[in-house]
Parts: sequence; structure tokens; C-alpha cells
Amino acid sequence: MALFTTKQTVRFADCDPAGLVDYPNYFKMAQALVEDWFAQSLREPYADLLNAKKIALPTVHLTVDFNRPSRMGETLTWTVQVEALGRSSIRLKLVATAEGAERLTLTQVIVTTDAAGKSVAIPPELRVKVANYQSATAKK
Amino acid sequence: MALFTTKQTVRFADCDPAGLVDYPNYFKMAQALVEDWFAQSLREPYADLLNAKKIALPTVHLTVDFNRPSRMGETLTWTVQVEALGRSSIRLKLVATAEGAERLTLTQVIVTTDAAGKSVAIPPELRVKVANYQSATAKK
Amino acid sequence: MALFTTKQTVRFADCDPAGLVDYPNYFKMAQALVEDWFAQSLREPYADLLNAKKIALPTVHLTVDFNRPSRMGETLTWTVQVEALGRSSIRLKLVATAEGAERLTLTQVIVTTDAAGKSVAIPPELRVKVANYQSATAKK
Amino acid sequence: MALFTTKQTVRFADCDPAGLVDYPNYFKMAQALVEDWFAQSLREPYADLLNAKKIALPTVHLTVDFNRPSRMGETLTWTVQVEALGRSSIRLKLVATAEGAERLTLTQVIVTTDAAGKSVAIPPELRVKVANYQSATAKK
Repeated sequence: MALFTTKQTVRFADCDPAGLVDYPNYFKMAQALVEDWFAQSLREPYADLLNAKKIALPTVHLTVDFNRPSRMGETLTWTVQVEALGRSSIRLKLVATAEGAERLTLTQVIVTTDAAGKSVAIPPELRVKVANYQSATAKK
Repeated sequence: MALFTTKQTVRFADCDPAGLVDYPNYFKMAQALVEDWFAQSLREPYADLLNAKKIALPTVHLTVDFNRPSRMGETLTWTVQVEALGRSSIRLKLVATAEGAERLTLTQVIVTTDAAGKSVAIPPELRVKVANYQSATAKK
Repeated sequence: MALFTTKQTVRFADCDPAGLVDYPNYFKMAQALVEDWFAQSLREPYADLLNAKKIALPTVHLTVDFNRPSRMGETLTWTVQVEALGRSSIRLKLVATAEGAERLTLTQVIVTTDAAGKSVAIPPELRVKVANYQSATAKK
Repeated sequence: MALFTTKQTVRFADCDPAGLVDYPNYFKMAQALVEDWFAQSLREPYADLLNAKKIALPTVHLTVDFNRPSRMGETLTWTVQVEALGRSSIRLKLVATAEGAERLTLTQVIVTTDAAGKSVAIPPELRVKVANYQSATAKK
């Protein structure tokens, strides 16, 4: 099974007066990637998790290396890996590449909470899907 | 000398359907903080650095811990510390607190480049100002 | 009584590769202005309206003229006028100026709805405050 | 020839604490639509216009009607029409629909300027492409 992958065009509005992606805009892309991974790969759309299951997914940690700048009109290829799966946390590694080189790598820890922000265990069916993705995409 | 400090109101538009600050919006606040620190504390506005001195300040690394969520209408107090000053890099620690508790802490590494993105040494007058801020605000 | 006024610095992140404010970012500023007007002038913070009174304030119409571009580091002075007050709608005129000239003018129609999005009359105490602001700031 | 059309998912980050798209985020979508129309339909990518031809495309006017709210997870279908083509201006009509109903309609006037912001005529080859699109997609 291949890593979940999306492509995102670097837009005019993503870039700053220096002509490069303004770093907060990378997080909008990363967030869209994770949202698409939940909806398309795990089949757990945020709207269902939040509205029907009352599960929120706040981010509690990020480590990011911006290896090379990106410019308007370039296409970034993003991938999702699951690095660790805890009782109520998921550690993801997100990588964006273009022209064969990494542009940024992002380690993101997401936790599961109820609507009031209290930690809750990852729902069993979501856990199974994340674990399956992790094992199916693990490097041999 | 006190740490450079700004206050930012958490806005309606900063918050997501869960009612909490959507994490990329924290980076817009952090970016405004650093921009204000350059302009008001160091007296080196970005517009001067970029347009007159042709110095860009891309971010190459971030480590972020989101300790507690923030809600619409709250006021965050942000501070800037200089953790390290290299030939062409500055490592900052940014902290946002509210109601006596840390909401997030952010380690950010900024580098100095020319307009083409090539690493250049921090201009001497900027270096002196950053070093002065670092020593004047260092914890005893 | 003077028009409610705020000042906003044009930030690096507000500007695009052409060096000018990217137009959607003006709306973030306009939104902050209206939010501040509700909280500071009308004394009706959004958080209270939304959470306690279950009143939402969606925008249903905008007409905007961008008269002159704005650049990083400039300070915009924004003002709020009430042009019309209906049963469940408020028409505002927002103006941003810098260096003595208008940068943009914005006509915005906001409506009051319940949490489900159904039109409701403006709550009486909010109506009185908006009417008072309108009459106190009307041009003679 | 069909109208240029794109689909955009309403993302978690596009929505506010009321659960609806926060209106400035519609403009980010509208901007992506126009950027894609230039790149994919007109074959005039912004990066080429701005960097090679030194043509900027600031927006000078907007009229927007937000007919119905949009929620996280919905898919908006956007179309571009050319309403008028002047010497140095293009008036577009952008429409976003979902579930068979209009969500918003946007009239946008874009002008062509040089890098210094001075009005210049639309470059001839761009004019021909816009005129061709206008006539090929005009309602009979």
C-alpha cells in the first residue's frame, strides 16, 4: 500500500514579498493534507468526527524543518506517514517534495478529545484504520 | 531590560468549528510578534531589511508545543527571547500565555539570506542589536 | 461622538509577491475592525453574542472599492459608519485610509441569525446600541 | 466551450466557530479559481505574467452576494465568466454553487499594471485569449 499522497500548487497568495511561500501558509497545506487523509484514506471525515462522534483532533506538537524555499506556481507533493499510535495520540510525519528534493518535513502530534477538550481514547474503529495504514505503509 | 511583549486578541476568525484557535493562525500571531520585535525593539523594520538592505529572513526550523487551547475573545501575551545567535541564524523562543498559563511555546530558527536566497552573515548592526537584546534580557 | 477608529499595520504576511496587500487580507483586517467595534464600542463581544445569546452575524453582501494599493509597514486607519439598520440587518461602511487618502471603502451587510442560520430580529439591546452609534456619528 | 470550472472542498480551517465558512476564506478560494483560470484556461500563469512580463493584476473592485452559508466537508463548484474587457481592466463574474443552489456570486474587476503599479494596457496576446474565452462562453 502506497503512502497517501496529494499535490498542491503553490499559489500567488501563499507567497510573500520575497517571492517565497510565507511559512504559515505551509501549515494550511499540511492541514488540508491531513484532512484529506482522514476523509479519503481513513474514511473518517472531520465533519463526521466532530459533529456526529463529538471527537476533536487538536494538534499538540509540531517539529518542522524547512529545507528549501518554494515559489509561486510550483507543485508540492505531500505524503503522510504514521510514526506512532498511542491511546489518545497519533504522531504523523508529513513530507513535501518538489523537483526531487524535500521542501519541508513536519512531525505533528494530534490528540483525540471530546467536545469539551478532555482527552479521550481514539475511537476503536478509527484506531484500527490508523493502525492498518501504519502497518501497510511501514518501510520494510 | 524586559522581554519584548505584545498582546493579541484571539479573534473569531482565528477559531475553528471546535471553537478553538486553529493552529496555523497561531503562526500568523507569532509572525506579527517577530515583525513587531524587529520594528519596535531592534529598530530594524522588515521593509527596510528587505527593500533597502536586500536581506530576507526565512524561517528554517520550528518546534512548537501547544500546551492549552485558546478561545475567541481571550488575550494572549507573547514574549520574545533570543536563545542563540549564529553567523547567519537567530534562534528565538516565543511564548504565549493567558490567565497565568502557557498556551504555546515556539522555538524558531530564522536565517539571513540575500534576495536570491543565498546565506549571508547577519549584517553587523543587526547582530549588535540582537546580541544586546539577548544579553540585556538573559535570565540571571 | 467620533467614529470608531482602529489602526492596523500592514504586515509582511499581508503582502504578495508584487509587494502589495493581497486583497483577501484586507478582509481579515475589516473583520477585526468590526469585531473590535462590537466589543469596544457597542460592548457586545462576539463571544457573548455567539455563546450566550446564540446570535450569529453572517455577512450577506459586500461592495468594495480598492482605491490605492498598500505596502508592508504602512499603517491603515479604519473607521466604522452605520449606513442602515433594518429588522435583522446592519449595513456598515468601513473606510481605510493612509497618508491622507482612501485605500479602500467597504459596504458590508451583516444579518442576525440563530445558531441554525434562521433569520432573527436584532436583539433589542443590540439594536439600541447600534441606533445610538448611528445617530451619534451621523454627518450633520 | 464550457465555462472554466473548478471544485473546492470546504475545509475545517475555512470554517468559524458558528460552523460556517468565514467569509474572507471564500476570497482565498476565489483567488485560487482565478489563478487556475489564468494558468489552465488562458495559459498565462501568474508567475510568467509577474516575473517575465512584469504585469501585475491587482483587484480594484468587488461586489459579492453571499446567498447561502457553506459548511465543512461540502464541495463548491466554481465558474468564471468574463463580463467586460476594457483597455486595462477585466470584469469577471465568479459563481460558487453546491447542491444545485448558488452559495455566492462575485463580480471582480482586475486591472493590469506594471511592476510600479502604473496602469498599462492588457498585453495583446492576453487580451486575445480573454476575448476568445468571453465570446466562446457567452450565453446565446
